Amino acid sequence: MEKFTRNQRISIITKVLMENPNKIVNLNTFTQMFNAAKSTVSEDLFIIKDILTKLSLGRVDTISGAAGGVKYVSGISKEESKKFAENLCINLKNKDRIIPGNFLYVTDIMCNPQIVQKAANILFSFFSEKHIDHVITMETKGIPLAYEVAKLLGVELVIVRRNNKLTEGSTLSINYVSGSSGRVQNMYVSKNSIKPKSKCIFIDDFMKAGGTALGITNLLKEFESELLGIGVLIDNTDIQEKLVDDYFSIVDFKGFDDNNEILVEPSSLFEI
Amino acid sequence: MEKFTRNQRISIITKVLMENPNKIVNLNTFTQMFNAAKSTVSEDLFIIKDILTKLSLGRVDTISGAAGGVKYVSGISKEESKKFAENLCINLKNKDRIIPGNFLYVTDIMCNPQIVQKAANILFSFFSEKHIDHVITMETKGIPLAYEVAKLLGVELVIVRRNNKLTEGSTLSINYVSGSSGRVQNMYVSKNSIKPKSKCIFIDDFMKAGGTALGITNLLKEFESELLGIGVLIDNTDIQEKLVDDYFSIVDFKGFDDNNEILVEPSSLFEI
Repeated sequence: MEKFTRNQRISIITKVLMENPNKIVNLNTFTQMFNAAKSTVSEDLFIIKDILTKLSLGRVDTISGAAGGVKYVSGISKEESKKFAENLCINLKNKDRIIPGNFLYVTDIMCNPQIVQKAANILFSFFSEKHIDHVITMETKGIPLAYEVAKLLGVELVIVRRNNKLTEGSTLSINYVSGSSGRVQNMYVSKNSIKPKSKCIFIDDFMKAGGTALGITNLLKEFESELLGIGVLIDNTDIQEKLVDDYFSIVDFKGFDDNNEILVEPSSLFEI
Repeated sequence: MEKFTRNQRISIITKVLMENPNKIVNLNTFTQMFNAAKSTVSEDLFIIKDILTKLSLGRVDTISGAAGGVKYVSGISKEESKKFAENLCINLKNKDRIIPGNFLYVTDIMCNPQIVQKAANILFSFFSEKHIDHVITMETKGIPLAYEVAKLLGVELVIVRRNNKLTEGSTLSINYVSGSSGRVQNMYVSKNSIKPKSKCIFIDDFMKAGGTALGITNLLKEFESELLGIGVLIDNTDIQEKLVDDYFSIVDFKGFDDNNEILVEPSSLFEI
């Protein structure tokens, strides 16, 4: 059987780990793939572990025991996070983004994989130490971001819908009050999609008054489940009365000034 | 300035390439990152290129010229694609998936990052040689899959919606006939989200009669744009009259037999 060089093994092991974030990969996967001794693979892993940590590009954890192995935990340095938030603000200040009704057009941002991936890395870093079972989002625009966070956590995404769909099977529905419009709305989720007694986080594109987030908290109660955290790309800080207390955001949107300039800045998380 | 070993450089270069699929990464990125000569980085890249190709795990292309560099093109071997389709069929045969009205519950599959990532790799492989500007999908369930394909192509995702939303700005809307229900429906897309004269592919979870895909073709005409291809996870082959000719699917769903068994098998693409 073919033998591989250390360089070759390191490239492939890095690739496999990146593709399976927060999932335990058994060392046998690599010993069999490369027809190599466990000690050899362990040395390879040590090199990868060491350089990722050194450059703040994530880490590789070793999990001992029968079901053990290694897992890659994604990471992003403080400097890179801050630079990302600053660049996003420059992008958001473009006046073409102003939509009648004082809305901000962000669809292109939420559909840009390179932006979404980095934003997900930042949001993930706030929850990486917690045990999370599901990432919840409300359709539609936040789905790519929530999906990326779910991937980094190694868990399934749950999409809550505004309308009941035949293809969702039995659904559970609750009413909630949209914090910004004050209207009563419905949210629906497939009964099969959330395990009872699970721990969840809610990820979305925009936080206005937090009505949706509060609705999700109540929805989760129906599953005897708990909302452990909230993460959004943009927080509308112009709306000061929030229905939820604790959440993480990457960018603060403070509305428009007298010249119709868009007021955005990196959230206070990046002040250091 | 710190020096890096070849092993360290190879791990980091592999990571950077994986995170930027189908995007040209200039060699200066690496020479600056590692304080290394161009020839050194080129040798590192040669090793990565060689082992990826050898194991059918994708490839690294060299692009010459001033805007040149290297780009990683994702890949999946025929064996792995086939194995994935077979495992997906086993998963789909679970009778709990039957929903009244002869629907199949696939929400968990479309929200599972590990499944979505592999499926996207397979669908991407059909379009990797074409120049694509956008990946289009219809909300909601196909979004994670379409997003992953867009990421592998290095382009933006476009989400077509069933309802008009204030936050989308000016939208373009068309009517289309759902092929399976025969009902006239609307689809809406933000006018800013599709560049005129662009080349697109449509990615979705399910193909029934193909009414949505045909609608997308007509929608793109309004942007003087073209649909170059269609890819779905599951094709309902029980519906034989399709409104579109050419599409790729991973799994064929042929309905239910007399014992209410779910009839699914890998699509004919995997017959070798």
